[in-house]
Amino acid sequence: MRMVDLIEKKSGGLELTNEEIRFVANGFARGEIPDYQMSAFMMAVVHRGMSDRETADLTMAMMHSGDVVDLSEIRGVKVDKHSTGGVGDTTTLVIGPLVAACGGTVAKMSGRGLGHTGGTLDKLESIPGLLIEQPMDRFKEIVNDIGVAVIGQTGNLVPADKKMYALRDVTSTVSSIPLIASSVMSKKLAAGSDAIVLDVKVGSGAFMQTIEDARKLATLMVNIGTLVGREVVAIITDMNQPLGLAVGNALEVRDAVEVLSGKVAETDPLYEVCMLLATNMLLLGKVAGDEKEAREMLANAMRSGAGLQKLQQMVAAQGGEAAYITPERIDELCQVQRKIPVYPRRTGYITGMRAERIGTAAQMLGAGRETKADIIDPAVGLMMHVRLGARVTCDTALCTLYVNDEKRLAEATEMFLSAIEIGEEKPDYVPMVHDIIRKCLS
Amino acid sequence: MRMVDLIEKKSGGLELTNEEIRFVANGFARGEIPDYQMSAFMMAVVHRGMSDRETADLTMAMMHSGDVVDLSEIRGVKVDKHSTGGVGDTTTLVIGPLVAACGGTVAKMSGRGLGHTGGTLDKLESIPGLLIEQPMDRFKEIVNDIGVAVIGQTGNLVPADKKMYALRDVTSTVSSIPLIASSVMSKKLAAGSDAIVLDVKVGSGAFMQTIEDARKLATLMVNIGTLVGREVVAIITDMNQPLGLAVGNALEVRDAVEVLSGKVAETDPLYEVCMLLATNMLLLGKVAGDEKEAREMLANAMRSGAGLQKLQQMVAAQGGEAAYITPERIDELCQVQRKIPVYPRRTGYITGMRAERIGTAAQMLGAGRETKADIIDPAVGLMMHVRLGARVTCDTALCTLYVNDEKRLAEATEMFLSAIEIGEEKPDYVPMVHDIIRKCLS
Repeated sequence: MRMVDLIEKKSGGLELTNEEIRFVANGFARGEIPDYQMSAFMMAVVHRGMSDRETADLTMAMMHSGDVVDLSEIRGVKVDKHSTGGVGDTTTLVIGPLVAACGGTVAKMSGRGLGHTGGTLDKLESIPGLLIEQPMDRFKEIVNDIGVAVIGQTGNLVPADKKMYALRDVTSTVSSIPLIASSVMSKKLAAGSDAIVLDVKVGSGAFMQTIEDARKLATLMVNIGTLVGREVVAIITDMNQPLGLAVGNALEVRDAVEVLSGKVAETDPLYEVCMLLATNMLLLGKVAGDEKEAREMLANAMRSGAGLQKLQQMVAAQGGEAAYITPERIDELCQVQRKIPVYPRRTGYITGMRAERIGTAAQMLGAGRETKADIIDPAVGLMMHVRLGARVTCDTALCTLYVNDEKRLAEATEMFLSAIEIGEEKPDYVPMVHDIIRKCLS
Repeated sequence: MRMVDLIEKKSGGLELTNEEIRFVANGFARGEIPDYQMSAFMMAVVHRGMSDRETADLTMAMMHSGDVVDLSEIRGVKVDKHSTGGVGDTTTLVIGPLVAACGGTVAKMSGRGLGHTGGTLDKLESIPGLLIEQPMDRFKEIVNDIGVAVIGQTGNLVPADKKMYALRDVTSTVSSIPLIASSVMSKKLAAGSDAIVLDVKVGSGAFMQTIEDARKLATLMVNIGTLVGREVVAIITDMNQPLGLAVGNALEVRDAVEVLSGKVAETDPLYEVCMLLATNMLLLGKVAGDEKEAREMLANAMRSGAGLQKLQQMVAAQGGEAAYITPERIDELCQVQRKIPVYPRRTGYITGMRAERIGTAAQMLGAGRETKADIIDPAVGLMMHVRLGARVTCDTALCTLYVNDEKRLAEATEMFLSAIEIGEEKPDYVPMVHDIIRKCLS
C-alpha cells in the first residue's frame, strides 16, 4: 500500500477501506508517513469528506494508536462530558460535582487551554495546592471514594491525534467535520468512560458556524459512539456569547461556586446548559429514570449545598485548599491590582458578541496562552456585565477587566471592544440550546 | 502574511492576490514554507482551482525564483516547443532540424525521461560522442551557426518548480490544470525563447484524460503566454497509442532519421504531428507567411534531405558522430542481443492501447529510468508493428522487443500485453489532432 495512492483515492472522492484508513493513521502516528503527505490527505478530506464508516474506522485507529484507559476498577457507569471549545465555559466544574452529588460517577481527564479557549486544568490550578497530575491508582481511588475527579491526561493517549492536530492547526484543515469528530471521539473513547455527553458549540466563536454543520458533527459523533457500543448524547448549544459571565481561571471557578451555591438564576445560560448536560449524564449513568427525576435531583443537590460540598471534597482529595471553595472566600483567589471597567463607544443594543475575541482579550491579560510555553496568571481575566440583546449607553460598563500586568492592556481593551457589536434594533432572541441528538442502544 | 491564512483562503475558494501568490512561491522556493503547508495548499488548488490571473502570477513567481536565460545574442525569433509527456514522441529530433532547415531558429533546452515517458536528452545521448551539456556561449554559437541546438538545462532554472514538482509527485497533486500550466510555462518562459508551440497530449497515457480538460490546459497556457507578451500556440493531440512506432532511445533517433529521410507516410501519426508543430513554429518564427507556405517549405526540406543534413550538423556541433545519422547506418546504434516478437493471445481488432504501459514495458527493458539513479541502455526498447484499429490474429507480431538484459523480460512482455486491448468490433477512427488553440498578439 502506498500513501500517494490513498491520497489520490480520497482526493478522487472514493471511500477508503478500514485497512487503508488504519494504514494512514498508524503510519502517520509511527512517523512512517511524512507530514507533507498527511497534510495533503487531510486537505483532500476537507474537500471530499468521509463516510460515517470511514470516520468510525479513523476514530478507532487513532484511539488504538496509544494507551487506552481501563476504568473497570471504578464502580458504576462512568459518564464523561466534552465541550468543543468554548469561552467562559466552566460547565465541568459545575456538573462534575453535581452529578457525583446525585450518585453519578465522573472520572474525567481534561485539557489545558490554548488560544481563546480556556482549559479546565488551568482553572483547577488556580486553587492553591491542587494537583491535576495524579497517579492512575489514586485517580480511581478518588472517584470510588467521592464520585468525581478531574485530572490531566495520563499515559500516552491517542498519539495519532496529537500529531494530526498539530498539523491541522498549521495547514488550515481544522474545520473538517469528520476530522473533528474522529479527534474528539478517539480521545473520549481512549479515556475509558462508558457513556459520553457532548456539548457541540455553534456560533461565531465555535468551530461550527451553522446549526446545520453542528448537527452534522453531533450526529456523526453519536453514530460513532453507537458503532463501538458506547452511549453518546450530544447537545448543540449557542456560542454567540461567552457561556458564563466570567472569562479567566479563578474567575470561572468563582462562577462555578456561585452556580453550585444556587446564586445564579435558572434563566442564566451557564445554569441552563449545566442542567441539560448534567440531566443527560444522570440518564446515561442510569442514576435517574427520566428527565424530570434527573432535574429534581440536580435542583436538590444545588439547594442542599451537596453539589458545592462535592466540589470541596474533590479539591481536597486532589490536594487543593478546599477552604477557598465557598461563596464567602472564593473572592480571595480573584484579587488583582486593578479592576478596569470597559464602556462602549456608542448607545444601542448588543446585537452580536464575537466570543473568540472576548477569549483572546482575556488571554492577552494573562488568563490564557498564546503558545504552550506561556505562563498563566490565575487571577486575571474579565467579568461580563451584559448579555446579547442588552440595551447599553456610553456609561454602561460592558465588562470589568481584572488586570495585574498592564503591558497588553490597551490591546486587550481594543480586542474586547471589537468583539461587541452594537446596533439600533433589539436583536431576535436566540435560544441557548438548539438541539439534542441521541441514539440510544437497545 | 501567514501561510496558514493563505491555505485557508484558497481552500475556502477565494482568489489570492499577486502579492500572496508570490509569498507562497518564493517562500517555498527559499525553504521558508515547509513541505506540509505547501502540499496542503496544492491540494486546496486541486479542489478549488485558480483563476487565469492567479495562474499567470504563480507562473511568473516561479519563473523568477531562479535564473532566466537571455537568448538575445541569438539572431532571429527563437521558437521553443514542449510536449506534455508522451510515449514514442520523438518530435523534437524531427522538427528542430526541419524548422532550422527552413530558416527558423530553435534554441532548445530539453529534459530527461522518468517513468514511462522518454526524454530527448536520453535519446540524443544514444548517439556516440554527443554532449548534451554545453556552455551557454557555445550553445548560442551553435544556434547562430546552424539554427538549432538541443541541450540539457543550464543554470538554476525555476527552482520553485523543481521543489513543487517533487512534492506534487508524492502527494497526488500532479493532475491540477493550473499547477501543470504554471509548471510548464514557468520553465518555457525561463528558457528564454520568444514564442512557444505546445503539444498537449490527451488520452489514456496522458495527464489530461479528456479533450475538455486538455482544451482547458491548452487555453490557460496560451493565455499565460499572452499575458506576459509571448506568442504561444497549443495543439491538442491524441495519446491513446504511442506517437511513433519506436519506443526507446536509439530506436526513436532511428524513427526521426526515417521521418527526415521521407521514408514515413504522410498519414503516419508521427509525421502528421511533426508537420503541424513545425508549421506553427515557422509561423510564430515569421519564417513562413501562412500555413500553406510553411507546409511546402517543410515538405521541400524533407524531400531535399536538408532536414536530415541539419540534424547531422547539430549532432556534429554537439560533438556526436554524425556519420551514424543516415538511413543506412542508424541501425548500427540499435544492435541488441535478442529481438523478440510479441504476439497477442486472441484474434480481433486493437480497440485500445495504454500508451503509458507500453512506455513502462520499454523502461523495464532498460530504455528508461524508474528512479533518477538508473542507467539507460540506449539500444533497447521496442518497435510497434500495429496501430489502433488494426486487425490481428495470434500470429500477428504486435511489436518486437529489443533486449540486452533479460532479467525483467517476462515482466515487460506482460506489461506490454496488458497495454493492448483487443475486441470484436473495429473501433471508430480517432483523429490524431483534436484542436489548435491560439491567441495571437496584435
